[in-house]
Amino acid sequence: MNAQVKTFSQDGDYKVADISLADWGRKEIDIAEHEMPGLMSIRRKYAPQAPLKGVRVTGSLHMTIQTAVLIETLKDIGADVRWASCNIFSTQDHAAAAIAASGTPVFAWKGETLEEYWDCTLDALSFPDGKGGFLGPQLVVDDGGDVTLLIHKGYELEQGDDSWVNSPSSSHEEQVIKNLLKRVAKERPGYWTRVVADWKGVSEETTTGVHRLYQLAQDGKLLVPAINVNDSVTKSKFDNLYGCRESLADGLKRALDVMLAGKVAVVCGYGDVGKGSAASLRAYGARVIVTEIDPICALQAAMEGYEVKTVEDTLGEADIYVTTTGNKDIIRVEHMTAMKDQAIVCNIGHFDNEIQVDALKALAGVKQVNIKPQVDRFDLPNGRSIFLLAEGRLVNLGCATGHPSFVMSNSFSNQTLAQIDLWANKDRYERKVYMLPKQLDEEVARLHLEKIGVKLTKLTQEQADYIGVPVEGPYKPEHYRY
Amino acid sequence: MNAQVKTFSQDGDYKVADISLADWGRKEIDIAEHEMPGLMSIRRKYAPQAPLKGVRVTGSLHMTIQTAVLIETLKDIGADVRWASCNIFSTQDHAAAAIAASGTPVFAWKGETLEEYWDCTLDALSFPDGKGGFLGPQLVVDDGGDVTLLIHKGYELEQGDDSWVNSPSSSHEEQVIKNLLKRVAKERPGYWTRVVADWKGVSEETTTGVHRLYQLAQDGKLLVPAINVNDSVTKSKFDNLYGCRESLADGLKRALDVMLAGKVAVVCGYGDVGKGSAASLRAYGARVIVTEIDPICALQAAMEGYEVKTVEDTLGEADIYVTTTGNKDIIRVEHMTAMKDQAIVCNIGHFDNEIQVDALKALAGVKQVNIKPQVDRFDLPNGRSIFLLAEGRLVNLGCATGHPSFVMSNSFSNQTLAQIDLWANKDRYERKVYMLPKQLDEEVARLHLEKIGVKLTKLTQEQADYIGVPVEGPYKPEHYRY
Amino acid sequence: MNAQVKTFSQDGDYKVADISLADWGRKEIDIAEHEMPGLMSIRRKYAPQAPLKGVRVTGSLHMTIQTAVLIETLKDIGADVRWASCNIFSTQDHAAAAIAASGTPVFAWKGETLEEYWDCTLDALSFPDGKGGFLGPQLVVDDGGDVTLLIHKGYELEQGDDSWVNSPSSSHEEQVIKNLLKRVAKERPGYWTRVVADWKGVSEETTTGVHRLYQLAQDGKLLVPAINVNDSVTKSKFDNLYGCRESLADGLKRALDVMLAGKVAVVCGYGDVGKGSAASLRAYGARVIVTEIDPICALQAAMEGYEVKTVEDTLGEADIYVTTTGNKDIIRVEHMTAMKDQAIVCNIGHFDNEIQVDALKALAGVKQVNIKPQVDRFDLPNGRSIFLLAEGRLVNLGCATGHPSFVMSNSFSNQTLAQIDLWANKDRYERKVYMLPKQLDEEVARLHLEKIGVKLTKLTQEQADYIGVPVEGPYKPEHYRY
Amino acid sequence: MNAQVKTFSQDGDYKVADISLADWGRKEIDIAEHEMPGLMSIRRKYAPQAPLKGVRVTGSLHMTIQTAVLIETLKDIGADVRWASCNIFSTQDHAAAAIAASGTPVFAWKGETLEEYWDCTLDALSFPDGKGGFLGPQLVVDDGGDVTLLIHKGYELEQGDDSWVNSPSSSHEEQVIKNLLKRVAKERPGYWTRVVADWKGVSEETTTGVHRLYQLAQDGKLLVPAINVNDSVTKSKFDNLYGCRESLADGLKRALDVMLAGKVAVVCGYGDVGKGSAASLRAYGARVIVTEIDPICALQAAMEGYEVKTVEDTLGEADIYVTTTGNKDIIRVEHMTAMKDQAIVCNIGHFDNEIQVDALKALAGVKQVNIKPQVDRFDLPNGRSIFLLAEGRLVNLGCATGHPSFVMSNSFSNQTLAQIDLWANKDRYERKVYMLPKQLDEEVARLHLEKIGVKLTKLTQEQADYIGVPVEGPYKPEHYRY
Repeated sequence: MNAQVKTFSQDGDYKVADISLADWGRKEIDIAEHEMPGLMSIRRKYAPQAPLKGVRVTGSLHMTIQTAVLIETLKDIGADVRWASCNIFSTQDHAAAAIAASGTPVFAWKGETLEEYWDCTLDALSFPDGKGGFLGPQLVVDDGGDVTLLIHKGYELEQGDDSWVNSPSSSHEEQVIKNLLKRVAKERPGYWTRVVADWKGVSEETTTGVHRLYQLAQDGKLLVPAINVNDSVTKSKFDNLYGCRESLADGLKRALDVMLAGKVAVVCGYGDVGKGSAASLRAYGARVIVTEIDPICALQAAMEGYEVKTVEDTLGEADIYVTTTGNKDIIRVEHMTAMKDQAIVCNIGHFDNEIQVDALKALAGVKQVNIKPQVDRFDLPNGRSIFLLAEGRLVNLGCATGHPSFVMSNSFSNQTLAQIDLWANKDRYERKVYMLPKQLDEEVARLHLEKIGVKLTKLTQEQADYIGVPVEGPYKPEHYRY
Repeated sequence: MNAQVKTFSQDGDYKVADISLADWGRKEIDIAEHEMPGLMSIRRKYAPQAPLKGVRVTGSLHMTIQTAVLIETLKDIGADVRWASCNIFSTQDHAAAAIAASGTPVFAWKGETLEEYWDCTLDALSFPDGKGGFLGPQLVVDDGGDVTLLIHKGYELEQGDDSWVNSPSSSHEEQVIKNLLKRVAKERPGYWTRVVADWKGVSEETTTGVHRLYQLAQDGKLLVPAINVNDSVTKSKFDNLYGCRESLADGLKRALDVMLAGKVAVVCGYGDVGKGSAASLRAYGARVIVTEIDPICALQAAMEGYEVKTVEDTLGEADIYVTTTGNKDIIRVEHMTAMKDQAIVCNIGHFDNEIQVDALKALAGVKQVNIKPQVDRFDLPNGRSIFLLAEGRLVNLGCATGHPSFVMSNSFSNQTLAQIDLWANKDRYERKVYMLPKQLDEEVARLHLEKIGVKLTKLTQEQADYIGVPVEGPYKPEHYRY
Repeated sequence: MNAQVKTFSQDGDYKVADISLADWGRKEIDIAEHEMPGLMSIRRKYAPQAPLKGVRVTGSLHMTIQTAVLIETLKDIGADVRWASCNIFSTQDHAAAAIAASGTPVFAWKGETLEEYWDCTLDALSFPDGKGGFLGPQLVVDDGGDVTLLIHKGYELEQGDDSWVNSPSSSHEEQVIKNLLKRVAKERPGYWTRVVADWKGVSEETTTGVHRLYQLAQDGKLLVPAINVNDSVTKSKFDNLYGCRESLADGLKRALDVMLAGKVAVVCGYGDVGKGSAASLRAYGARVIVTEIDPICALQAAMEGYEVKTVEDTLGEADIYVTTTGNKDIIRVEHMTAMKDQAIVCNIGHFDNEIQVDALKALAGVKQVNIKPQVDRFDLPNGRSIFLLAEGRLVNLGCATGHPSFVMSNSFSNQTLAQIDLWANKDRYERKVYMLPKQLDEEVARLHLEKIGVKLTKLTQEQADYIGVPVEGPYKPEHYRY
Repeated sequence: MNAQVKTFSQDGDYKVADISLADWGRKEIDIAEHEMPGLMSIRRKYAPQAPLKGVRVTGSLHMTIQTAVLIETLKDIGADVRWASCNIFSTQDHAAAAIAASGTPVFAWKGETLEEYWDCTLDALSFPDGKGGFLGPQLVVDDGGDVTLLIHKGYELEQGDDSWVNSPSSSHEEQVIKNLLKRVAKERPGYWTRVVADWKGVSEETTTGVHRLYQLAQDGKLLVPAINVNDSVTKSKFDNLYGCRESLADGLKRALDVMLAGKVAVVCGYGDVGKGSAASLRAYGARVIVTEIDPICALQAAMEGYEVKTVEDTLGEADIYVTTTGNKDIIRVEHMTAMKDQAIVCNIGHFDNEIQVDALKALAGVKQVNIKPQVDRFDLPNGRSIFLLAEGRLVNLGCATGHPSFVMSNSFSNQTLAQIDLWANKDRYERKVYMLPKQLDEEVARLHLEKIGVKLTKLTQEQADYIGVPVEGPYKPEHYRY
């Protein structure tokens, strides 16, 4: 229950909370491997060919047990990997320890400060060149786009545009990034330009990061080919939906042991994450209210029997608030001060700015009481209290252990195939955002069926001809929504 | 309980079962109008401009109460409409009567023979030219593509290619079509060529019909621009999913009053129709088994807790079989003879060839006992019996009244907007398959929110900028799956 | 669609709507027999012994296909049966016809007037004595207690107490009963006293009827031993719960084809019937609000995620109202005039006085428009309209066909075992309300398992000893709630 | 992650893992108080009267945060309390620390040995008499009946019957108890007889303990009046059902982070605990198979769509096994060796003998690998591995934190009212097992409604008369099952 963290750097190239947790981490990695048939199958298929042989890969993605299996899969197929987490609270320290102990440089622990977080990101980007300097990655596995952002901003600065770095920051984190870039500019002149020269591509895990990539591409600023892993069906319709259906309640339970039955829960946003979150809360007997901006998603929510209204209309009625939007300022200070006493506020979308955490902390007369790590009570000037989980960062990763292995095996199989694809096509792909072909999507699904005892029906040639698809797939048009 | 049907042709231009049902039909149309806010809103918005003023529109789509509201919406915005059903069992006779009584030519009754069905289709295509001859439609509303097929095949024949018409038929229905085309060739020489000359477009309702259109377009044979209405989100993710969730059980109940709790039900196919069907059966307490060819859909089914195996593996275990595939030969004769005694077999996909009905009827020693219209018991040579509903045609339309009004209002709002769009762009569109823009999709959803009390959240400009969308939408990238 | 009914009395001893429906009824009875393994098993076991040989049994219970199987079971084990329905709308005319055609006197058709209803009840009580007079039943199967009421009130009158018969009536129906008793008093002097002399017991089907019996017993007025069938677990926890879960939506759909998804539905009462009703509506995607007087049931509803508030608080918000209480004045006129336009009101509890139907009809300025049998629209003076189903009587029986066979097989197996038990113990039982022993309850369940493929685990002797029960059951203490 | 536990005895009268956890425990007790309105309301109502003033109360019940609120409620109404846990793994160490720090003697920590466990039980029974000796409790709060067992067995021995103490033991735990009794016999001669002289009653929490009480009463051996708290509706139909619905998955997740979607889970037993467990697993997307001995519960499971078969029939198919029976030898060694690789086995029923843990450990060639506290992998001789959670003890308490506060507030309100009732009626009650009157049951429910926003409907006098109940309740007959 001690929130203080010691970082280690024994034998050089890693920073983890406690290397002695490595054995425990290894045992859980072993368990996870049994639940990640997609990754294990990719190892068996590709390890002999080693398609990423010697390729430098930087990963910035929650350093969990599941990610450990991803990392070791990338290594198995030849990659030279360095890793950081993409969230200050999401690291499982025993997972990081096991990876560090196995010799892979990893820079992550649960409860980093923002300064430590961005330093770790830089560490993960810094492949020693053997001459005391650093090379950058050839490929990047990104989640939320922080590595991509850092390289793009660093490169922009080195290209002579210092407008962003010197502009006022809208958040503390933004300033941390700028400070880091300024420091790198001094310590490693020309570094980002050299990084970009070697960089061949990035595969991105989440809705938010993908969104950033499409904006970069649209603005003509994207520096490498990118693969949108998030929108593989076997990612967004599985991880986002079924993953959150299991991990949201897990986070709430580990944080506060709260009874969900009988509670009124507000789910802000009814995309895949919101759909999974709402389903989970309802299954426990909570009455779920949905907020939405998109009329189609709102109508979907209504068709499932959820009440759809605004956050404002729920204040004083609801016990639990969950943001799932990928947007900002969803739960604002004026909302939090109008909530029921003992209301719980958390985020399972992407960034912590879905909730106005900074403004809450800055509120005159507010008192923050830490209950245990990642669980804070805010005593408000009006005499009521609310609970904030994981300081507004991802509650499933901050307060529990993220999504379970089986669903992450789908997502990470897509990641691995995307990395292989980027490298294989490094000379062919343009600086655009690509998606994996449907055939690979179906393949990822196929790799997971046997484990859970699914038996597929096979088309006859006559049936395949009748509906105009190959017997072995792909079976659906591109616009199919599943 | 009398399956015999008298057709009328009083005062000329319609064929319905019983014109005296018109008053009852009108009362139910009035009720439906309250449940179809999308269509009513379109009437209010477009009637003054009459964008389809004088445009000849042929519809081939289940002649139900809901369709009556669609027809009267098309008329309200100016169209000259003729209508047939697209299924021999799906007509609600009181709906058809009300439409006929209001002066719109309609050719449909519940329980047509295949010969009558195709004659009705021709009737719906035949706009009197005032000189004893017939004009064709300028626009077509199609469901399953029968009108589109007829025109294309008729045109092909008039272009001199008689290979199809003279080839052996794989089904009785195919032969009926060929006979009709031969008759028209005699009675109305050059008719199809004249029809095609005036024809400006078709909007298609279903997966199956859309599939045919894409094939025609791919083969370079599509004669007009087409709009794929099925794949509007507010169609396929609503009508197919939520519609079937309500209408499948309705069909089963009206047919056989069967207890669903405790039964084992096999849903063949886990697309949107299958998803709705499975959800419905499970909600009633049936244990649902899914069959699938597509590994992604199979994995979705497994993630929802359904057992996924093959039809063969369920024989002797399952009580109810529902096909939802759009493919053929899903339930074969060898399946039906191996089923449990009293098993129920039905189809909610598209065509009746999902079940091998002809082969069942032709089975040596089989005895067909009609229980009531659209419900038959087949006593098998092995001493067991099975029930076949709606002779293998759509059970929700054959044994109940199809999807409820509210969800059809979404589908038909898309249809109406597609008709307006086709006409407005008749000089611009190519002979391709188009989809409605996302903005219209969102608009259709929006028109249905108020009726059910949904209150949308509005983006601030700052939030909209943050996620890079206009405040008023559209809110999602094209590849978003909902 | 014709609400007029012709009653027949061909060949003497029955009154049904249309004897020509007998063949159809027989086909459906055959189907039902396959779904009613409990009753069929009782036939096999008891028919050889004929424990009710020659016993005169009057039944007053919805004359449906399922009841036909009950009637023929009672006949198979020896009884001399006469039957009426216990509800003016619940008869399935083809079921009644089949029973009449088989020679059993039955007096029931869909859409009786109240006068006809009570005449039918008397007919079912009147066993010809062969000398032009009538004997009464020796046993009664009652549902709602109308036969029991009639005998008790008739007997009271003959005992010289005419206070009730001459008191002002609180409803039209009450007056109809009094008129009937006065007529019988004239036509058959001393009849009820003779009936009571022969009467050995009654088994009662429903919560409401059981409630009346306990009150009679408490007041010392009960004339015969009674068995409370309703509270057998395999009745109240099955028929009331799972039956309504299937038949409520069925009634709503056949009445109005209404889309349930997205609607707000109010379920008044959260007993077993309410639990089944709410589950069903939610499964379709309705948002369900519960009203309750009992804090325990209210807390159960809340734990399942239902909003619990008063009818008053839902007015203007809800689209559908369902009463399930067994109490009266649940939906009052002032509620109905404050409802949303197009709201639907129906009852699946017991009597039609759960809704103030008479008061609604009497409301100044109201206009009643019949849409089809059992579906009426009331145009209110405030310009809004509401729909009333089955005139406030049981919507599942009035608008659909009641509960499905399988669940009724449980209820009716209890009924049959109760009849056998009453007769076997006619000399031993006191004038009290009994329940069937748990062993019979478990036996009824057991008879239904094989049909749906359930395989029970068997206790070892050691395990049985450990928990202190016999290996073969019963397994639970009397207070166990299931 | 350190399973070693230091016990403390600072300042005398408690044994807890780490008294420094008291502050954290107090913060969570504060949170729990907001979620336990029943207990807080009882405090407000009864504290002024102090109905248990000076009464010595021994509790043996999981030493969790919720129990801390119970303990402090008992103290608030006057009691002199000593406490132990009733399970070696269920203590929350911060809860125990907070209670100890507040001056209440508590003897409990997570991970006791069996010897320590029974010593703690004796500690909780031993009220210092101020003269160096010990008094026993006047009232007992029991969970599973261990205190009741110890007193009864101790008393039996002092009465001269040493047959049990000297008989061979069927389990290690049985021998531990016998050894303890022999030691007490030496150290405190006549102690149990003095305890029994003062002892006025016991209120019992669980199905299993209640079962033991009824057996004692039946055998004429029960030494005090007992109240069956378990079968209050607001206990068994809430705690057992809704509690397990939340805490089973919580235990599984904290233990193994396993993905539940797509898994096959076997729930042994379909009582209230089984119903909650099955609902929870299904909600996560697991396919649930139920095993049952009772045909009624089996039929209930089938009506909810669960497959019902035997454990034997699931081997090789299922991934997760959960016992909920209260019986023994449910999962046997021969089952475990035939399970799928990586199968998970756990118990949420009562005792650890539901699973043959001892026999598994004793299996030749088996290897036990501890993953983390309460999570063990057993590598079987056949090459497969299975996971055993909490060594077969309650998985929700061993691997998570038990049921959430709100539902426990119901159970513990019943406990508190039972304690008050036992003391108030100590001179009146016989040595029998009593249940709380329905009025108190309803009162407990009522105390929990406001917190979750439930608004009850009030009966009018006329309605109350119509159904023959008082306006203020109780509303249901004794046999009503909810």
